[in-house]
Amino acid sequence: MKKYNFSPGPAMLPQIVLEEASQGLIDYNNTGLSVAEISHRSPIFLNIIEEATALVKEIYGIKDEYDVLWLPGGASAQMAIAPMNLVDKRQSIATLETGFWAKRAITAAEQICRVNVLATSKETNFDRIPHPKNWKLSSSTRYFYVVSNETIEGIQFHQFPSVNVPLVADMTSDFLSRPLPLEKFGVIFASAQKNFGIAGITCVLIRKDMLTNTVRRMIPNIFNYRTHIEHHSLFHTCPTFPIYTSLLALRWTKNQGGLDKIHSQNSEKTRLLYEEIDQNPFFKPIAVKEDRSVMNVCFRGISPATEAQFMTFAEQNNIVGIAGYPTVGGFRASIYNAMPLENVNVLINAMQTFATENEHSIS
Amino acid sequence: MKKYNFSPGPAMLPQIVLEEASQGLIDYNNTGLSVAEISHRSPIFLNIIEEATALVKEIYGIKDEYDVLWLPGGASAQMAIAPMNLVDKRQSIATLETGFWAKRAITAAEQICRVNVLATSKETNFDRIPHPKNWKLSSSTRYFYVVSNETIEGIQFHQFPSVNVPLVADMTSDFLSRPLPLEKFGVIFASAQKNFGIAGITCVLIRKDMLTNTVRRMIPNIFNYRTHIEHHSLFHTCPTFPIYTSLLALRWTKNQGGLDKIHSQNSEKTRLLYEEIDQNPFFKPIAVKEDRSVMNVCFRGISPATEAQFMTFAEQNNIVGIAGYPTVGGFRASIYNAMPLENVNVLINAMQTFATENEHSIS
Repeated sequence: MKKYNFSPGPAMLPQIVLEEASQGLIDYNNTGLSVAEISHRSPIFLNIIEEATALVKEIYGIKDEYDVLWLPGGASAQMAIAPMNLVDKRQSIATLETGFWAKRAITAAEQICRVNVLATSKETNFDRIPHPKNWKLSSSTRYFYVVSNETIEGIQFHQFPSVNVPLVADMTSDFLSRPLPLEKFGVIFASAQKNFGIAGITCVLIRKDMLTNTVRRMIPNIFNYRTHIEHHSLFHTCPTFPIYTSLLALRWTKNQGGLDKIHSQNSEKTRLLYEEIDQNPFFKPIAVKEDRSVMNVCFRGISPATEAQFMTFAEQNNIVGIAGYPTVGGFRASIYNAMPLENVNVLINAMQTFATENEHSIS
Repeated sequence: MKKYNFSPGPAMLPQIVLEEASQGLIDYNNTGLSVAEISHRSPIFLNIIEEATALVKEIYGIKDEYDVLWLPGGASAQMAIAPMNLVDKRQSIATLETGFWAKRAITAAEQICRVNVLATSKETNFDRIPHPKNWKLSSSTRYFYVVSNETIEGIQFHQFPSVNVPLVADMTSDFLSRPLPLEKFGVIFASAQKNFGIAGITCVLIRKDMLTNTVRRMIPNIFNYRTHIEHHSLFHTCPTFPIYTSLLALRWTKNQGGLDKIHSQNSEKTRLLYEEIDQNPFFKPIAVKEDRSVMNVCFRGISPATEAQFMTFAEQNNIVGIAGYPTVGGFRASIYNAMPLENVNVLINAMQTFATENEHSIS
């Protein structure tokens, strides 16, 4: 039975990506070999990683000013690796405490350097992007760190801060989902599996000038960006199959017709869902309107009983993965690039039917 | 056309593992979901990782004296992470320079602590396990590091050192291939993809007493073994599909009938191949007899011309992945658990046919 999978991640992938990946596991392009059992240094795999890199550059319209790396693990590793590589001993970073992932990144960076948190939205349980009273950065600030989309609280930067240092961004949950003001970004990292690939791989974009300063700190070779730049991500056996699935997802992304088009599709999908949440008497939104995420739509039922009932009702309708994160509660519908509009409509229809069937209970 | 794949890694996997993994990507156990698109915290995935952990323990006959972790990335990361977690500032480690992977591990550990290299076989291009004149370890020695099998040079420890500190072992290329004197080992790590799983995941066994001492060093949370022990490898989104393929390979391993049986199968496969190398006039072995690897059989042709000819001949017979590593040259046939005896015989037959066809050239 087909499921409508709103999981926040690992999340649904385009059907064609799953089918091609599945086929590649058995016999890659009629080579008589599984794509998972060929050397990462073989010409077959070199073509895969080079095409994936080229597609990231093509989709974002970047050239050689950035290095594109494919590193094992997820964003939590980059939260340590980025400051380790970029911030010298007397330097600091600045950021906003926007939610769960910003908090984890602050904790990780604080093990390595000073972190200036300019503002927090903790008081309102991270239902919005906080606005600092003062954007003035200390002269020691190496970069400004942002989590472009907070999956757990369902908020997103729709405009990125304009500051006099480069942005370093965790874009795990909205990579490849919209055009970017690239001139603002020094480093962008995004781990699969939301808008590309399968879990176990992270794509890191590093603007070349970010590594020209000297960082006086022992950086283990394996966690040194320079190592991986020098070896084109092949210093070690890279996660070959996760990279192959990333390539398949990138091809699919390109075929959608560009980031403008993807962004407008994504915006339409979540606009319809937020509209339903705003008007349906059984549900209420969580994030403030201006900061609502286009990727993760978080909402509550009007009572714990309603939430339990709708969860059961959704499951009966093959809608899965919509439980909110415990710190937020309620529901979270994650709607990444691969989620078709039809599936969003299935959820909207379920909410409407639920409302009709339960009308008496609040009449 | 079926290939006989002797790749050193990513290497061939059992056909049933590839088929089940391929099917799971489309629809996992009739859930209507791909195994790659479910949350790492979902009951479905928790069952997968728990079964994988239980199988590692069952196959090695260990109980709760070890923690079993599933960490992203490969062995090169553990070469830094292990000393970072285990060796305090004034402590050191001891090791033998056995080949390529020992050299990389020495370089990685030297970024973190003192490393005493007791012996090297560099003078003979790492064709053997070196024997120290003196096994006496300095009192600061925290552990003795071994690469149980050197894939590139084709040598293997058939007996592990007996020292008064625990062994920490990179077992990437012979994990699950033979019984172990477990009482000697404090930490064992092995990255896929040789004897289990697909690249992007590392299994780490940590004897609980290894983490009782205090290490006064900043360890980033994400690289701290304690973090992952506390969170049962789910501190972050772990590489879910690589772990699922590991589970499939572990089930296959268990079905082989135990490590004794696997070891005797492995030994027989390579015994036949070494026998052919020793007697075939066109080939010669590389490693000294007593240290020859049961996993990676390295050999040379009698001349550069012979090597080029046999490489072509092998390809014509659908034998792939047998090029030796550049520092060693010649050929390397990697024969992990999943390699059937029949495939080894295909290679042996090709060597015999090649010898017959070229007899005139040396007569």
